Amino acid sequence: MNQSLDIMTAVGAAAAIRDGTMTVEDFARGCLQRMAAREDVLKAWAYVDPAAVLRQARELDKTPSLGALHGLPIGIKDIIDTRDMPTCHNSPIYVGNRPSGDAPLVETLRAAGALIIGKTETTEFAAAGRDPSTRNPFDPTRTSGGSSAGSAAAVGDGQIPLSIGTQTGGSTIRPASFCGVHAMKPSWGTISREGVKVYSLTLDTIGLYGRSIADLDLLAEVFGIGEKQQIPASVSGLRLAFCRSPEWEATEPPMREAFARAEDILRNAGAHVSTLDLPEPFNGLPAAHKTILFREGRTAFLNLYRAHHEILHEDFRHRVENRDGFTDQMLVAAYDLAAHCRTRFDSIAAEYDAVLTPSAPGEAPKGSGAGNPALNHMWTLLHAPCINVPGLKSAAGLPLGITVTGSRYADRQLLAVASAIDQAIAAAI
Amino acid sequence: MNQSLDIMTAVGAAAAIRDGTMTVEDFARGCLQRMAAREDVLKAWAYVDPAAVLRQARELDKTPSLGALHGLPIGIKDIIDTRDMPTCHNSPIYVGNRPSGDAPLVETLRAAGALIIGKTETTEFAAAGRDPSTRNPFDPTRTSGGSSAGSAAAVGDGQIPLSIGTQTGGSTIRPASFCGVHAMKPSWGTISREGVKVYSLTLDTIGLYGRSIADLDLLAEVFGIGEKQQIPASVSGLRLAFCRSPEWEATEPPMREAFARAEDILRNAGAHVSTLDLPEPFNGLPAAHKTILFREGRTAFLNLYRAHHEILHEDFRHRVENRDGFTDQMLVAAYDLAAHCRTRFDSIAAEYDAVLTPSAPGEAPKGSGAGNPALNHMWTLLHAPCINVPGLKSAAGLPLGITVTGSRYADRQLLAVASAIDQAIAAAI
Repeated sequence: MNQSLDIMTAVGAAAAIRDGTMTVEDFARGCLQRMAAREDVLKAWAYVDPAAVLRQARELDKTPSLGALHGLPIGIKDIIDTRDMPTCHNSPIYVGNRPSGDAPLVETLRAAGALIIGKTETTEFAAAGRDPSTRNPFDPTRTSGGSSAGSAAAVGDGQIPLSIGTQTGGSTIRPASFCGVHAMKPSWGTISREGVKVYSLTLDTIGLYGRSIADLDLLAEVFGIGEKQQIPASVSGLRLAFCRSPEWEATEPPMREAFARAEDILRNAGAHVSTLDLPEPFNGLPAAHKTILFREGRTAFLNLYRAHHEILHEDFRHRVENRDGFTDQMLVAAYDLAAHCRTRFDSIAAEYDAVLTPSAPGEAPKGSGAGNPALNHMWTLLHAPCINVPGLKSAAGLPLGITVTGSRYADRQLLAVASAIDQAIAAAI
Repeated sequence: MNQSLDIMTAVGAAAAIRDGTMTVEDFARGCLQRMAAREDVLKAWAYVDPAAVLRQARELDKTPSLGALHGLPIGIKDIIDTRDMPTCHNSPIYVGNRPSGDAPLVETLRAAGALIIGKTETTEFAAAGRDPSTRNPFDPTRTSGGSSAGSAAAVGDGQIPLSIGTQTGGSTIRPASFCGVHAMKPSWGTISREGVKVYSLTLDTIGLYGRSIADLDLLAEVFGIGEKQQIPASVSGLRLAFCRSPEWEATEPPMREAFARAEDILRNAGAHVSTLDLPEPFNGLPAAHKTILFREGRTAFLNLYRAHHEILHEDFRHRVENRDGFTDQMLVAAYDLAAHCRTRFDSIAAEYDAVLTPSAPGEAPKGSGAGNPALNHMWTLLHAPCINVPGLKSAAGLPLGITVTGSRYADRQLLAVASAIDQAIAAAI
């Protein structure tokens, strides 16, 4: 593989394809080579058909540009329906499952010229049950994080420029932190989640991975989220709030150091840095998240419990039987608290250009577990856009991500601010 | 067809099958005969394969009872995926579309022994665009209402005992009112909507049709919604609030008379009847509903706009292009108002055993349009359970339904109260 291909951003590759300096086939071939070379160690992929990928790549080379993603390889999390590949949810119930059509989000990607290169490994139903076997690109004894394990690892490892994940707790942002990848969980409801396995309608959100903030902005544009914003020349003068969130106790020393380091870097670069302590009601959000997750999960997995009881993983039986006893009153209280805090967080966030918070408790843990979503689930429940800015690393050389978040639907403004933050951090390390 | 079959409730038929006094095949054959005899006039069905239905019926006759719905024929709205029948959404884009699997709710029905008898006509994507050709069982020059046109008409016409619809505006309850059918829109999130075409995640809700309140209760039980409640011996002593809602101006004289008649009947039967005027913020709910509907519809139909632009109906282009200019600020305000009113309505409704409100502006209109959802959309947005109690009729003999509603997740309590109300109205007319 041409060494440059594995660090080429999606925006850069799109330009090279458009200008005729690189063919779709060459880029796809480079990606496939890197995927094949690394798969034994990384195990990012649930399904790839190299011959079919190259056939489509050659077709795209012969086709006038379909759109902004023309010829760009994209990995799709294996809980998302694809018309030409299996969708197996890492579940024994769905072995060999062949959906008859693309999920709408996949159809939108194809309509913009994307090359769907394969299906990425996932935690079972992006929820619980079976872990993926995916490993961390920086240390194969460690997890890539879940549930969007393969999507994060494949981009983090330089195999592909773009991928799609999902987030219900912390399933996009946490793996991005562990794998050192730029990622975004957009505001709730901005990308169709039809044709994607449901866990919780209130929480499930499509997630985006790329090699730069501009790559994420490119995907946001394709999905019709907001309008392109001017990127600030620098962080100088930006109002940035550092928020430890109610889950700060879950953080470990390497993340605490990285978070302090980010604050120093951005202050030194001229940002107006302040500390944000969220008001008392926000302390109830972690419990509200769990109540909603488990009660909506009861609805989501009922059919599997009834029709595939013997092979359904214990974790899902647990939810359907409501073994933790979440009551209707608890569910209503959780919905109402979340709604209250959404309004308040919009007001709070409006006073800043961005709110920054840790993307994960610390380094990727050993093994193949999903990792602790404590630092992410609150923001998922708030429906707020979250962007993972990588770049910082622990003493051991492992990635530690910072989440840039803000008001609902400020996605594109936040991407512009995150771009300036990303540049400042990259310049300082 | 045995004349009694077309008025046999699902509960009654289930008992007859269980007791061996009726075979599944006999019941299915009776339903198919009535369907065939009436289809030219009523046009309720998008797809039926009588031979396959009878084959499955005979299988069910040979099988020990699978559950509470063993052998009961159920019609499925044609925006819901079925593994053995096409799912076409009344859209030219989906002609002949064959999903590879059942929607989870269909799998849950089958696991309880249900016989999926066919797919029912729908407004395009249960949203806008093309009207179904379905006519009203009481007057074929009139509409059955939409979007769950065929599901309501087939049950209202005595063709089948049970069917499944959906509601995003008023698509379950309004056709029930027009067709004189018992129907329920449960609390939001209580039945999986995976494998069902998405219009609005905040509003889309699965709807149930049956021949009695007990039939609806049977379906609620199968879907694991709440717990069975004792039915009051009569309405005597029940606290019933008559609520004209902010959309009262949309009602026509026949409904106004029916609503007053219901109040008289229930008062005379001993209920404590009162008038409920909702507080001022509720007046904003109709506009909030439209904002959410159109903005979430923009997300839902983006892929069709991009990939099937030429044959996509103008109504959906309208939404994707956001021609009405609904802003992010309007969307946030709509979400927040809805959340505020949900909490308040729960408190208000807790003071009564049920809140009653009209199910439609009046009689089914001439033609084949969906009808005006003004009397329904507020309750959909509130996520409140709604039950249509039929029985009342206009001077012209056309059905006029009353909605029985209440707090979120009070579904089974409300079904018990609705049963008493239903009996009181049936006894008085």
